[in-house]
Amino acid sequence: MAGQRDAYVVGVDFGTLSGRALVVRVRDGAELGTAVQQYRHGVMDRRLSAGDGAALPPDWALQDPSDYLEVLRTAVPAAVRAAGIDPADVVGVGTDFTACTMVPTTADGTPLCELDRFRDRPHAYVKLWKHHAAQPQADRITALAHERGERWIDRYGGAISSEWEFAKGLQLLEEDPEVYAATERWVEAADWIVWRLTGEYVRNACTAGYKGIYQDGRYPSEAFLAALDPAFTGFVRDKLAAPIGQLGRRAGGLTAEAAAWTGLAAGIAVAVGNVDAHVTVPAADAVDPGQMVAIMGTSTCHVMNAGHPAPVPGMCGVVHGGIAEGYWGYEAGQSGVGDIFAWFVDNAVPPGEVEEARARGISVHRLLTERAARQQVGEHGLVALDWQSGNRSVLVDHELSGLVLGLTLTTRPEDVYRALLEATAFGTRVIIEAFEGAGVPVTELVVAGGLLANRFLMQLYSDVTRLPLSTIASEQGPALGAAIHGAVAAGAYPDVAAAARAMGGRTVGAYTPDEDAARRYDALYAEYTTLHDYFGRHGNDVMHRLKRIRREAAASRPAVPATEPATGADGAGRRAG
Amino acid sequence: MAGQRDAYVVGVDFGTLSGRALVVRVRDGAELGTAVQQYRHGVMDRRLSAGDGAALPPDWALQDPSDYLEVLRTAVPAAVRAAGIDPADVVGVGTDFTACTMVPTTADGTPLCELDRFRDRPHAYVKLWKHHAAQPQADRITALAHERGERWIDRYGGAISSEWEFAKGLQLLEEDPEVYAATERWVEAADWIVWRLTGEYVRNACTAGYKGIYQDGRYPSEAFLAALDPAFTGFVRDKLAAPIGQLGRRAGGLTAEAAAWTGLAAGIAVAVGNVDAHVTVPAADAVDPGQMVAIMGTSTCHVMNAGHPAPVPGMCGVVHGGIAEGYWGYEAGQSGVGDIFAWFVDNAVPPGEVEEARARGISVHRLLTERAARQQVGEHGLVALDWQSGNRSVLVDHELSGLVLGLTLTTRPEDVYRALLEATAFGTRVIIEAFEGAGVPVTELVVAGGLLANRFLMQLYSDVTRLPLSTIASEQGPALGAAIHGAVAAGAYPDVAAAARAMGGRTVGAYTPDEDAARRYDALYAEYTTLHDYFGRHGNDVMHRLKRIRREAAASRPAVPATEPATGADGAGRRAG
Repeated sequence: MAGQRDAYVVGVDFGTLSGRALVVRVRDGAELGTAVQQYRHGVMDRRLSAGDGAALPPDWALQDPSDYLEVLRTAVPAAVRAAGIDPADVVGVGTDFTACTMVPTTADGTPLCELDRFRDRPHAYVKLWKHHAAQPQADRITALAHERGERWIDRYGGAISSEWEFAKGLQLLEEDPEVYAATERWVEAADWIVWRLTGEYVRNACTAGYKGIYQDGRYPSEAFLAALDPAFTGFVRDKLAAPIGQLGRRAGGLTAEAAAWTGLAAGIAVAVGNVDAHVTVPAADAVDPGQMVAIMGTSTCHVMNAGHPAPVPGMCGVVHGGIAEGYWGYEAGQSGVGDIFAWFVDNAVPPGEVEEARARGISVHRLLTERAARQQVGEHGLVALDWQSGNRSVLVDHELSGLVLGLTLTTRPEDVYRALLEATAFGTRVIIEAFEGAGVPVTELVVAGGLLANRFLMQLYSDVTRLPLSTIASEQGPALGAAIHGAVAAGAYPDVAAAARAMGGRTVGAYTPDEDAARRYDALYAEYTTLHDYFGRHGNDVMHRLKRIRREAAASRPAVPATEPATGADGAGRRAG
Repeated sequence: MAGQRDAYVVGVDFGTLSGRALVVRVRDGAELGTAVQQYRHGVMDRRLSAGDGAALPPDWALQDPSDYLEVLRTAVPAAVRAAGIDPADVVGVGTDFTACTMVPTTADGTPLCELDRFRDRPHAYVKLWKHHAAQPQADRITALAHERGERWIDRYGGAISSEWEFAKGLQLLEEDPEVYAATERWVEAADWIVWRLTGEYVRNACTAGYKGIYQDGRYPSEAFLAALDPAFTGFVRDKLAAPIGQLGRRAGGLTAEAAAWTGLAAGIAVAVGNVDAHVTVPAADAVDPGQMVAIMGTSTCHVMNAGHPAPVPGMCGVVHGGIAEGYWGYEAGQSGVGDIFAWFVDNAVPPGEVEEARARGISVHRLLTERAARQQVGEHGLVALDWQSGNRSVLVDHELSGLVLGLTLTTRPEDVYRALLEATAFGTRVIIEAFEGAGVPVTELVVAGGLLANRFLMQLYSDVTRLPLSTIASEQGPALGAAIHGAVAAGAYPDVAAAARAMGGRTVGAYTPDEDAARRYDALYAEYTTLHDYFGRHGNDVMHRLKRIRREAAASRPAVPATEPATGADGAGRRAG
């Protein structure tokens, strides 16, 4: 091999606020250079920062697709420069995206928001994954599916999310029929970016399955769509359907135009689109059944392959080929994890602790973790429910809320902080037990995401779940995973699993359960599950009632003076959020 | 009346950390001068600061009785000087004390701790009201009373407290039989101070009833005492029994010795002893049945007269003549109120709020109250249980703990603060409903104590209870109440009720319920009571189990190095507290 030039791939990770390009060596996954480009328009959730600046209703979240192309034009060449390689040695490109993030386009993929006549129309822009204004539509889809006994509903734990393709599409139809009519293609951004790179529109198997209700080769029937709304009957046929591409396959070759944007060679392989969480699985070399990958950040996404489909209660979905070709890919999640810890640090930690952390040059998280780690299990006397942001799995209920129980006059901030850490670990254990109860065993917990830096938290998760816990080796899991798909698409490896073994990696058994601690946590977990079921399974629907009371109370506020619309809206938004 | 010299009385209020003397004009209750004397030995809860400095076990709280005499020698003359009156015009003295606070003495009232041979023995000192180390003895007394079907147990809501005379006496017997044997009188400090002032040992009807299980002219029988411990058989006969004095009666005349201490004239009337909470009733001119006086400070004590005894579930006690002669006096309480708010401010309010309060020169309490007051009822979406310090009434369970439910990522400190304020109001409403359910109506809520300065809190209590709320006029309620008793003892008024009308006072209807707010609070109160009963009445004993887990966890800590006993004890104490 001496003298043979190394081959490289570029992975491009499109996140919520920015895109990252990463140059990776094909033979071993070495990461040689990276660059990040912030989205100029960010997340538009109060008003359009494009067009006429129209105000947006609550729960909206839009993006401008031109920001994605900017990542190709700036971050990709910058990463290649940082890597110090010859761009001609790049043999493939892979991408991953947030999902479900939807672009309404013309037949050739032009976003409607780029047409002059739609520039001021919010519905013509990209609906970001966290656009949550389609809840009524989602509720109707879920209810109708159960009413009609649609078999596919079990593949989604019994509920269709407001984030997904059909709910967002139905909202578009009902709120702006003109833009709906002009939408010739309703495209996942994950596929739109590949379309832009290759000129080919290929729907990736991952989002088609998890977000597009594509199961066993079929979408929901026209009869189902007609029952939702007669005008929705042709939604799949006219706007959604497109060839399905398996993950890791070549979607097409880089166009001359995209080659000019990126500085890469025209014609090199571009992989089928993919999703940030799912692409992390090969980045951690955790493609095998039983390896549950938990991407732990503000929220946690759990993804795992298995050999068969099973109706795991409360999961987000199970999709054939949804994570890797040939496997059934499962997804579940916790709506709030790191954001709960951040909320606590921002809103409930007194000056003494904040000043001590500053004086020592460490974060408040670090300080509280240090103190919490000195405690014996159960010494704080607390148990918490981690539902500050609702519950995604296994209860699928965003009207739930958080709880802290066991408070005394001696309870200190580190006590509550530790109880919150524990509550999220218990939440993960509930999900694992749901999988195992449905006959889908979990044998290893593989952690990716920012929270793996907290060693105490990692040991806690291992103890609570009684699983060996591995940690992803790369600090750029999604971008590396995208690059791995680029390598497979370029033919450098026979499949994603083989590429993952060579290019991905994890520290196996970085943490192992301590049986004594595990036993002590069992007692707290028993309390957690009792409260979980009492408040989460209709033993006492107080959390639902409090949310209703809260909305009614906020609505009964005296009107905001007309001269201060922005301030008023902000205040009400914080309250109602 | 022109030319006739005014008469004065002195009230002396013995608190937990200091004593206060107040000079009051007999004809109208005008407060002319006051002075405070801190106790030199304070509360001894870690080690004796007298004697050899012996370390004390957890939950102990002792005092040195010489500190009480110091108040007579310094604060009384200082108050008289401050009033600018002639000491010869003082016609009577009244006192009030914390209770149940017990002094072991010889037959002539000499505290055993003043005897050389007992100077280093913790059990020879005063056991302060909050000495909580007699819980096992209290539990046995309660259990035996139910087992034997003792009728008096209903007069105490079904439970005898570890704070009271029998529990503390039994602990003394069992832990230091030699000091027990030398204890010729087991004396309430309320009566001991009057004994010192007059040379007469009179047991006041208030503490004899509430703390000494004296009901219908009898103490618990010798058979009952023998069943607790054969050596305890003679406890009442040999150590406790003494003539009972009704409140407001003259216990005796000021001795020459006490006249020398205080600078007052020998022979003037000294009233029978009394208790801080109970003496506040006449100070607020709220002696009539149906006027519930809530003394709201770190905790809340509820006291009220009625015409008949009734078994109110979970009350602290009902005693004939316990508040005023001729009435049945009821007492109930909430273990934590102001101390819960203080705990929250000290442990859960972030720097931004603390700095804003400092910049504006107001307390954090004030800042949070201001913000909370701007909210609509229910807008915070929270409900809390106010059991951070356990529950005194109506559950009588100190193994309960606090809870906050409904937390979201938008929950702010003022939201939780308001939920805690509301929870204490709901706790008061539960107590009022227990009284009313037992046929003891409450028609007016009269608030005394430091928390009445919080106007938002007062309106909240009125709204939640749907009662007109009055506030005591005096800022020195207990000392004024003690003085009122001195005036009655001196013959200036025929009874306490008449003296209260002339000398006490309150702002009637300072707050009245707002029906719209009351209706909205009803919805939150319904949630509170559901949680109250679920966690407090054995629907889910998680709080008990967490306290046990917590104790076991603290006990499993690695041993503290022998060279640092004090630090170790402090740390463990905070944890276990």
